[in-house]
Amino acid sequence: MKNILIIGAGLSATSLIQYLLKHSENNNWKITVGDMSLESAQKKINNHPNGIALRFNLKDLEQRTEEISAADIVVSMVPASMHVIVAKECLRHGKHLLTPSYVSPEMMELDEEAKEKGLSFLNELGVDPGLDHMSAMKIINRIKERGGKIETFKSFCGGLVAPDCDSNPWNYKLSWNPRNVVLAGQGTAQFKENGHYKYIPYHKLFSTLTKTQISGYDDFEVYPNRDSLQYCDLYGLKDIPTIMRGTMRRPGYCEAWDVLVQLGCTDDTYEMKGSHKLTYLDYLLSFLPDSEKSVEENLADFTKIGTNSIIMNKLKWLGLFSDEIVGLKNATPALILQKILEQKWALEPSDRDLLVMQHLFDFEVNGKKKRIISSMTFEGSDRENTAMSYTVGTPLAIATKLLAKDQINLKGVQIPISPELYEPILAELENLGIQFIEEEIDL
Amino acid sequence: MKNILIIGAGLSATSLIQYLLKHSENNNWKITVGDMSLESAQKKINNHPNGIALRFNLKDLEQRTEEISAADIVVSMVPASMHVIVAKECLRHGKHLLTPSYVSPEMMELDEEAKEKGLSFLNELGVDPGLDHMSAMKIINRIKERGGKIETFKSFCGGLVAPDCDSNPWNYKLSWNPRNVVLAGQGTAQFKENGHYKYIPYHKLFSTLTKTQISGYDDFEVYPNRDSLQYCDLYGLKDIPTIMRGTMRRPGYCEAWDVLVQLGCTDDTYEMKGSHKLTYLDYLLSFLPDSEKSVEENLADFTKIGTNSIIMNKLKWLGLFSDEIVGLKNATPALILQKILEQKWALEPSDRDLLVMQHLFDFEVNGKKKRIISSMTFEGSDRENTAMSYTVGTPLAIATKLLAKDQINLKGVQIPISPELYEPILAELENLGIQFIEEEIDL
Repeated sequence: MKNILIIGAGLSATSLIQYLLKHSENNNWKITVGDMSLESAQKKINNHPNGIALRFNLKDLEQRTEEISAADIVVSMVPASMHVIVAKECLRHGKHLLTPSYVSPEMMELDEEAKEKGLSFLNELGVDPGLDHMSAMKIINRIKERGGKIETFKSFCGGLVAPDCDSNPWNYKLSWNPRNVVLAGQGTAQFKENGHYKYIPYHKLFSTLTKTQISGYDDFEVYPNRDSLQYCDLYGLKDIPTIMRGTMRRPGYCEAWDVLVQLGCTDDTYEMKGSHKLTYLDYLLSFLPDSEKSVEENLADFTKIGTNSIIMNKLKWLGLFSDEIVGLKNATPALILQKILEQKWALEPSDRDLLVMQHLFDFEVNGKKKRIISSMTFEGSDRENTAMSYTVGTPLAIATKLLAKDQINLKGVQIPISPELYEPILAELENLGIQFIEEEIDL
Repeated sequence: MKNILIIGAGLSATSLIQYLLKHSENNNWKITVGDMSLESAQKKINNHPNGIALRFNLKDLEQRTEEISAADIVVSMVPASMHVIVAKECLRHGKHLLTPSYVSPEMMELDEEAKEKGLSFLNELGVDPGLDHMSAMKIINRIKERGGKIETFKSFCGGLVAPDCDSNPWNYKLSWNPRNVVLAGQGTAQFKENGHYKYIPYHKLFSTLTKTQISGYDDFEVYPNRDSLQYCDLYGLKDIPTIMRGTMRRPGYCEAWDVLVQLGCTDDTYEMKGSHKLTYLDYLLSFLPDSEKSVEENLADFTKIGTNSIIMNKLKWLGLFSDEIVGLKNATPALILQKILEQKWALEPSDRDLLVMQHLFDFEVNGKKKRIISSMTFEGSDRENTAMSYTVGTPLAIATKLLAKDQINLKGVQIPISPELYEPILAELENLGIQFIEEEIDL
């Protein structure tokens, strides 16, 4: 019998827990779910005979020691910064670990010791990071096997709302951490274009757009992510002339979001004076010059948009002109914007979200220039069962199964870029409806 | 006999040392100047009979102890972050201290102990900070004495180049730390306008301009400084409806600088890949989209300026289109820009710089609305004897003299906002040609 301990029973753990409970029956597994809230853990277990729910406090050393030492495999679904606490405990007791999150420098420091102890510390096993690595590496390796030379790699991902639930002027609803949506892209985007390094500062990011389409879902726009250059090394594409990773939005989103960026609404570096007394209109006016003009005219002049433009309509729809009180103490501009968006961009109970991912490869093989476009779309079922949580939880769940069945021999701190991990995971995902549609064309 | 120790003999210490040597004769002072470079210290002493030059290493505890314990008063002209090392040694040996720099939180922590020991730790005694405090507080206190209520306080300062030495299209040359010029304004500017708090992000700063004039020097433009709000408390202007401090430039400077900001040239947060191999043109192209257009057209389109505009002319004059190699390893965009500016904006040996400062007060007294405008201009003599170093060094020198003659009773960590400090300093500065011209008008 294998004991699998899942720490954290939040939204993104739903699909993971369901999958593992389902497979526990044939595999003689015990699935323990620990969360700060016993109720959350119980809800996820739903009285399954192989499941155990418990109140779990990661900061309680005694409990941490007891539960982790009793497990064979630990899946950490805690906030990203806390994975390393779990990881160190796993090292101490000789347990395997899986997480959906980016490998932090602190996690990377544990690589050697994990290898020495024969432990698998598998990370970046969600959708992005996760499915992006797996689906890209599969194609990269196939092109290399054909003797191809990759000239361009572009990779896009977006968490959006399904077309028939798309009912607001932003064509966007929140299927993941709203704070990350508000702060997305801060810093400087770095990528390569035709052999040249390119650097786009945050205030230019949302006007530096690429367009793309996905069959059945029409048009998307893409803004560059911060970190495209590291993928040259990661994916074995060292001298590739063009590489860019980006985030997908519906057309028109970015030009309106750019106005919020230009105003400074996404700034998280200072607290606004007397923020709890501000109305939303006061909030907006804090970023505008004092003026005799109407607020609309003032905003339009300052940000160079039209007073009756589609952008203005999006901003008005957010309630930025309302005299309702914000009511947040010591809040940064970003926190106030987050509060607005959490209300306006919330999924309704029956709303289904949409996860989209697309890779584009231009390459030369046998003197011919070709392009592969590989696209994946997945729609959620409702607000509880989102595409986001399904596509984060399912690859991780499959990896956990493979590890529990001793089908993974990778030791140390790993991400899913080798066939041993991505082949079986992608194959099973395809059966579960998470499928990439690929087309290859001559250029 | 009083022993005065000056630590640091850089450019900004010239006027300070000259003043103290001159006054040493009537006051029986010994002036010791210590610097990492014995030559620099000797050059500043210039064989004056009351002067001693020595090689001084602040990190050498033995030397630090010996020299500071032998002094009565210490003037710290080291880089701002190192004042606190000097200050702690002064505390240990019971010595008074003066610095031209902003009071750091670490310096503020020494306030209580300095007070207990009866020591004066006088800071912010240069031009900005320094002369700005003194000249503003003198007027603020006078308006309050008249029973006036201050509605608006604006305070501007700029280190520029004298009109007859102004020979480049930016109308700007470097009279102080070039790194500070490149990074100026980063963060979010905070001020108050008609009772409303205003927040201007860095990427909007150089297009949020105020205009002003100074008699004999024509027009200036002003961009807001980061930190205007703290002056409400500092100057006793708690409920003032409008307060803004700003930096003065010649008209047209900011719109061109804004293009560099928009491109990301002032970013100091990442190193450009292969920076030592880049040409200046490569540097520029790193911030532009790939394009078939000419560089001029590409830049013009991306930043929305004209291909034959005055702004384009300023950028071309900087050499940004040249194929000369940058030659800086692991350099950030800001470091490369700094290298360009150090060459292009250097003062010629005979160039004279210009220091300008202006305060504007709107107030109500006896039911009448009035305005006071107080302006100071000062031109340097040449590249060695700049207005910048004279206006930084002279207030500090006067304060040192007052302290040496036991005419200051302020104890603890102080800045020059009380009449005891600013009255005698401003009076003597006036005799030395650093004079504010004031006009009062009815509104």
